[in-house]
Amino acid sequence: MKINDNYLRLNESYFFSAIAKKVKEYSTAHPDKDIIRLGIGDVTRPLAHAVVDALSLAVAEMGNSDTFKGYGEEQGYSFLREAICGYYAGKDVTLSDDEVFISDGAKSDLGNILDIFSPDNTVLIPDPVYPVYVDTNIMAGRKIAYSDGNAGNKFLPLPDKKVKAEIIYICSPNNPTGAVYNIEQLGLWVNYALRNNAVILFDSAYEIFVKDEALPTSIYQIDGARECAIEFCSLSKTAGFTGTRCGYTVVPSELVRGGAALNKLWLRRQTTKFNGVPYIVQRGAEAVFSGEGQRQIRKDIDYYMENARVIADTLTGLGIWFTGGENSPYIWLKCPNGMLSWDFFDHLLENYGIVGTPGAGFGSNGEGFMRLTAFGSKENVVAAMKRLVTDGHKM
Amino acid sequence: MKINDNYLRLNESYFFSAIAKKVKEYSTAHPDKDIIRLGIGDVTRPLAHAVVDALSLAVAEMGNSDTFKGYGEEQGYSFLREAICGYYAGKDVTLSDDEVFISDGAKSDLGNILDIFSPDNTVLIPDPVYPVYVDTNIMAGRKIAYSDGNAGNKFLPLPDKKVKAEIIYICSPNNPTGAVYNIEQLGLWVNYALRNNAVILFDSAYEIFVKDEALPTSIYQIDGARECAIEFCSLSKTAGFTGTRCGYTVVPSELVRGGAALNKLWLRRQTTKFNGVPYIVQRGAEAVFSGEGQRQIRKDIDYYMENARVIADTLTGLGIWFTGGENSPYIWLKCPNGMLSWDFFDHLLENYGIVGTPGAGFGSNGEGFMRLTAFGSKENVVAAMKRLVTDGHKM
Repeated sequence: MKINDNYLRLNESYFFSAIAKKVKEYSTAHPDKDIIRLGIGDVTRPLAHAVVDALSLAVAEMGNSDTFKGYGEEQGYSFLREAICGYYAGKDVTLSDDEVFISDGAKSDLGNILDIFSPDNTVLIPDPVYPVYVDTNIMAGRKIAYSDGNAGNKFLPLPDKKVKAEIIYICSPNNPTGAVYNIEQLGLWVNYALRNNAVILFDSAYEIFVKDEALPTSIYQIDGARECAIEFCSLSKTAGFTGTRCGYTVVPSELVRGGAALNKLWLRRQTTKFNGVPYIVQRGAEAVFSGEGQRQIRKDIDYYMENARVIADTLTGLGIWFTGGENSPYIWLKCPNGMLSWDFFDHLLENYGIVGTPGAGFGSNGEGFMRLTAFGSKENVVAAMKRLVTDGHKM
Repeated sequence: MKINDNYLRLNESYFFSAIAKKVKEYSTAHPDKDIIRLGIGDVTRPLAHAVVDALSLAVAEMGNSDTFKGYGEEQGYSFLREAICGYYAGKDVTLSDDEVFISDGAKSDLGNILDIFSPDNTVLIPDPVYPVYVDTNIMAGRKIAYSDGNAGNKFLPLPDKKVKAEIIYICSPNNPTGAVYNIEQLGLWVNYALRNNAVILFDSAYEIFVKDEALPTSIYQIDGARECAIEFCSLSKTAGFTGTRCGYTVVPSELVRGGAALNKLWLRRQTTKFNGVPYIVQRGAEAVFSGEGQRQIRKDIDYYMENARVIADTLTGLGIWFTGGENSPYIWLKCPNGMLSWDFFDHLLENYGIVGTPGAGFGSNGEGFMRLTAFGSKENVVAAMKRLVTDGHKM
């Protein structure tokens, strides 16, 4: 019996657990301190009324033999796939409903999609970025190359002709930096992928936070992307579904590699190793895309983005360099005075009672940076920023 | 760019789609015929009241900022893992809650578990069986050996010392044959696995249908199983969750291969490529294990098993050989007069308006057999059996 020993090459202790442990130790030692968590990537606003109503109705249907639903199609009900096509039409992107696959979230799909590719491919991953891209490829034993994000390129690395890779990850708006590619920059990536016969895995989980109408919110707004890109999106941040679990993946019919349509390979993967998202949840997700649902969720997005503005204004006032916060719920700041990420984490926690996320956890280029998020309550964000400005400690 | 070309070795047209197509063609050609579906493996009874109440309560929680739930632990909430430990205690099996992993269903876990094993292992799969075991291993390029089920061994194959395999699938009660291993027979498999340093993947999705108290409903009722077996179970058939999606997988802490605890490898797989089951669904699942929930779901099981009894009695009266139906919702019958599976499928459809599932779809040993299921309504089952007995066609 051989195990998959690629797993043994993963770091044992997971980054976010390490943060939780540090905060717990500090709060146990200082039970009187009021700690404000600005590091967390989880939403706090409840589900929208339209979603709750749809979920309740679907629960009632499941309790009645006339309306009970058993197995649905693994790739999702057509009512939801069509609603998503409608959402894309609003971005001037035309999709057919069999190009949309409903899933339990972008994290699952971003990991599982690798199943349809050979382990022999080289992947290109931005640094810093969401750690799951790296870990899922280590698990498969793939060779990993990195594209360097840094203050010089505002954490928006562009293709390097000398680097050959077959699978390219792009996350825009980026987690953790909040940086967003413009149309021209994404066009360079699409051309690079087409030239190299590569596939772009485009993570658009934060697309709804883009306010600037000139910025792309889908890779398919770029010419040629239907021949080289798979797009992953999620309702987690869009509509507070982090604990309700629904996402979707788009695989265009034109995307053919090695003589095979990737749409058909992914359909085969999903019909064989997945059994669909709960009917109840799909009805809740459908409501997100209704007129009323969209109005309600955008109020929550505005709420979070007001938090982002408060954080960004404070950092600007303090003269601290950062990206993000304008078209993203993430603010990525340079630790003052050349501090390392974990040192600044301790500094913020011990002197201000604020928890951030150390940038070093997102890749080696994250060292010396810190991620703050806009997902807290307004009261907490305002209180935390007041501490930064008025407390006597040197930033 | 190389795709995973193991996918190209899969059969293009999926078995259950082929059945659906045939039935559709027939009903289009004969719109007046009343077709009764006894082939389907999907439940028809609605969710139990206790489950509906728990789901409704959880939906309300998600709509309120004080009780809203974001990300939960990927392996599931402890309230549900503890409820499952309690259920196993009722089988005299002691589990710790960190040995239980909540998922969106046994199908997902049965496919995804393979990620923690090397593709170099040989798998041993019963024939006939649920087709997903074979397909997921073809996708990984693994060598497959088969253990032959047939009328001679009542579709309960036992280990063959000459066959070496590292991963062993057992499904008991079996899908499609309804055959159930006894304690002694499962003991032979456990001993075989221990001797070969192999791992048993035990699919217990139909455990609740076992009425005979002498028969095992968990592999962990066998001495030594904690050192060699992973168990997969689901609420799909237990509690009508086929469209609500919740299952669980047990990986005992003693299960170590290649120096690694498989529990830790699976935890790492799930925390990296999965983000948990919806909070709402986990609350519904918890209710299944409550006293009231258990009473309610067992009424539905009794309802289905009464259907199974009606089918079994009819076949006995007609002198048709079959297994299952006593401790399983599946009845596996030998097609009369030496008919092949698909010929008998046509015969049943055209002469009796009954849809079965051709045994040939479950493996080469299924040729000449047919699966009927007890998941229909009582009225339909009784009507179908009446047609078999009274209609003038030769069986």
